[in-house]
Amino acid sequence: MNDATEAFDAVDVIATKRDRGRLADEQIDWVIDAYTRGVVAEEQMAALAMAIYLNGMTGEEIARWTDAMIRSGERLDFSGLSRPTSDKHSTGGVGDKITLPLAPLVAACGVAVPQLSGRGLGHTGGTLDKLESIPGWRASLTNDEMMRQLEDVGAVICAAGSGLAPADKKLYALRDVTATVSCVPLIASSIMSKKIAEGTGSLVLDVKVGSGAFMKELDQARELAETMVRLGTEAGVRTVALLTNMATPLGLTAGNALEVRESVEVLQGGGPEDVVELTVALAREMVSAAGLEDVDPADALADGRAVDVWRRMIRAQGGDPDAPLPTAKETHQVLAPADGVLVELDALAVGVAAWRLGAGRARKEDPVQAAAGVEIHYKPGAVVRGGDPLLTLHTDTPERFGRAIEALEGAFTIAPEGSRPDLPPIVIERIA
Amino acid sequence: MNDATEAFDAVDVIATKRDRGRLADEQIDWVIDAYTRGVVAEEQMAALAMAIYLNGMTGEEIARWTDAMIRSGERLDFSGLSRPTSDKHSTGGVGDKITLPLAPLVAACGVAVPQLSGRGLGHTGGTLDKLESIPGWRASLTNDEMMRQLEDVGAVICAAGSGLAPADKKLYALRDVTATVSCVPLIASSIMSKKIAEGTGSLVLDVKVGSGAFMKELDQARELAETMVRLGTEAGVRTVALLTNMATPLGLTAGNALEVRESVEVLQGGGPEDVVELTVALAREMVSAAGLEDVDPADALADGRAVDVWRRMIRAQGGDPDAPLPTAKETHQVLAPADGVLVELDALAVGVAAWRLGAGRARKEDPVQAAAGVEIHYKPGAVVRGGDPLLTLHTDTPERFGRAIEALEGAFTIAPEGSRPDLPPIVIERIA
Repeated sequence: MNDATEAFDAVDVIATKRDRGRLADEQIDWVIDAYTRGVVAEEQMAALAMAIYLNGMTGEEIARWTDAMIRSGERLDFSGLSRPTSDKHSTGGVGDKITLPLAPLVAACGVAVPQLSGRGLGHTGGTLDKLESIPGWRASLTNDEMMRQLEDVGAVICAAGSGLAPADKKLYALRDVTATVSCVPLIASSIMSKKIAEGTGSLVLDVKVGSGAFMKELDQARELAETMVRLGTEAGVRTVALLTNMATPLGLTAGNALEVRESVEVLQGGGPEDVVELTVALAREMVSAAGLEDVDPADALADGRAVDVWRRMIRAQGGDPDAPLPTAKETHQVLAPADGVLVELDALAVGVAAWRLGAGRARKEDPVQAAAGVEIHYKPGAVVRGGDPLLTLHTDTPERFGRAIEALEGAFTIAPEGSRPDLPPIVIERIA
Repeated sequence: MNDATEAFDAVDVIATKRDRGRLADEQIDWVIDAYTRGVVAEEQMAALAMAIYLNGMTGEEIARWTDAMIRSGERLDFSGLSRPTSDKHSTGGVGDKITLPLAPLVAACGVAVPQLSGRGLGHTGGTLDKLESIPGWRASLTNDEMMRQLEDVGAVICAAGSGLAPADKKLYALRDVTATVSCVPLIASSIMSKKIAEGTGSLVLDVKVGSGAFMKELDQARELAETMVRLGTEAGVRTVALLTNMATPLGLTAGNALEVRESVEVLQGGGPEDVVELTVALAREMVSAAGLEDVDPADALADGRAVDVWRRMIRAQGGDPDAPLPTAKETHQVLAPADGVLVELDALAVGVAAWRLGAGRARKEDPVQAAAGVEIHYKPGAVVRGGDPLLTLHTDTPERFGRAIEALEGAFTIAPEGSRPDLPPIVIERIA
């Protein structure tokens, strides 16, 4: 029986989706609001999430669900800024440090980049964890500080405040413990509710595909990208998605300080080819989505404007861009077992190894090691000699080497010399 | 990541069933045990229950799940009794007072009947609620009191102690709020875990089919009955099921004291034909399942032995079998709108009306009215005259009449005189 003060009964809402029905707009509005208020219990939302996982949602249901999550909290408003805004979201990968060079690069092109980021969980690193390896840098800003930095510096990478989409915050934590994470309607509405509530004018999505990504298959990644582009567009945010390769790690590092170092190399005009290529591709999309058609981010990278913004961005948040980054107490080299061509270096295995070395966390409360991680000496396609170091593992706690090395078993494949591995491009597809 | 002290991770168990996998015996044992200990959270069990609801369980999974729930608590042992034991379980219906005459009748035939019962929730009444309308009668007995009464009187109807299948107790409450009730694997394992833990030597299941029952369709009821018979048999309990009609209420009353009155009429050799027929049919099954082949319960009903046991059973639990039963402060008659043949009287509608009059409860904590309920003056097949009273509604709180009458809208159908309604038999099918 209904509680007389509530418009719906949670059991009826769950039963509707359980029986493959379409949730009414009013049911969705109510269930998200009542969940935020604690009237719909965690176990009821868990049952509903599993019913959604198994029975899906229509495009209309996803849009309403997303909108209800946005309305569960505050919305930021960047319309007072003197520049257009653009934001990027990546679905997460191994060695994915792209936000670090990208935000200052796009800001150097005249766009304001409000990059509200998270911490890492599991085998993918978190942008805030990476930046926190810079001495003095702090992730938490007030909304006013963020606005001011966006106006002054043009780029800010900081922790999302708790006021944005609180329903999503609760639901995200719940999905994590109830095996309801990998579900397109719930992923898309989670990401997009935060990004739309954040108030960005345009958004570029980097949807990763491959072993190190959330979406292992191209079809699934494409469905997620299309769903998110539709949600953004319908909410008035110019949204574009790139499907990008995550079969192998991005760049030559996975780990917090290691990735900061590589990001600075990119900003200084060097760095690994794949990181540069993806950074520039995403920057072009962001600049274009922000309406600045005649600007080429490659120029801002070449002429030093991007690295200048980086230094100002780090300083504005208390960091010292010139301070030496922490280095690990111990290293261990993984050697090539034979001569040949490296045809595979598995992203997931490298990600798990970096995590086990101390770069990542299993629980939200766990600390991370700034210096831990994996350095990659050869990427797929390279010719190697038996005995060459393939990877260098970094950690402050050498007892971690054992399980990291275990994670790397079978992670790389060396084919006879002359083999030509079939390597996918970094950017696989564009969805607008 | 696993908690190192636990054998499994709840997320992996949920994901296995979510992905239509078969749960390993060890996973089932662990998840039930860890749920009982509070290590598997309510929201995790809710997600698992929904995955089971939508993806099912194999016979082996259901058997293991049932066994794990039995092992979550204590088991009773009736092997010290001088007589064989037999128990009955009904899946619940409207006007289903059968336990009241049945337990003393079967005891009068030389079988010990340990009838651990529950209270009503929603539109079906609860056996304990009915008996509590008898002045002085108490539902709670210690295990020792129950054993002694079984030996001395032969029949006991009392509340199940909290020590039997505590995992089921938690899960039952959870399913109620998460729309995961109506699912054969979960219903079957819930019922059978309690009945097997209770230690009965034989068991007769009354699986109701029709609008007033949990199972509206015959196929579904048959599947449930077959699943339960298999579970009982495999656990060494001689188990038989009858599929019985619940399209229309059983007998001529729905409500607590009203049903006690009717039960006593049956024990005294009178009472409505359908109640007598089903009571005797179930008694024959119980007596036979207990191994007493040459005894006919009809004799024990005719010669007064059954009503003697009833009186001793009520007295043993503090009740006065001669005290007048409570009567309602107010009544209201529902009249036949036309001449003709009553071809339908809907069980669910009558059950909801009785509930709304105060005979049932919406929440576990709610009180019930002893005297509230519905008295039925004509059953399907009867010829009625326009203006004849069809039903009398009883309640202590006349403001309840309105919503009870609403529930009865469309509940009965009167066809032109000469119509011959197609009435199903009380016992539709036997499954052994």
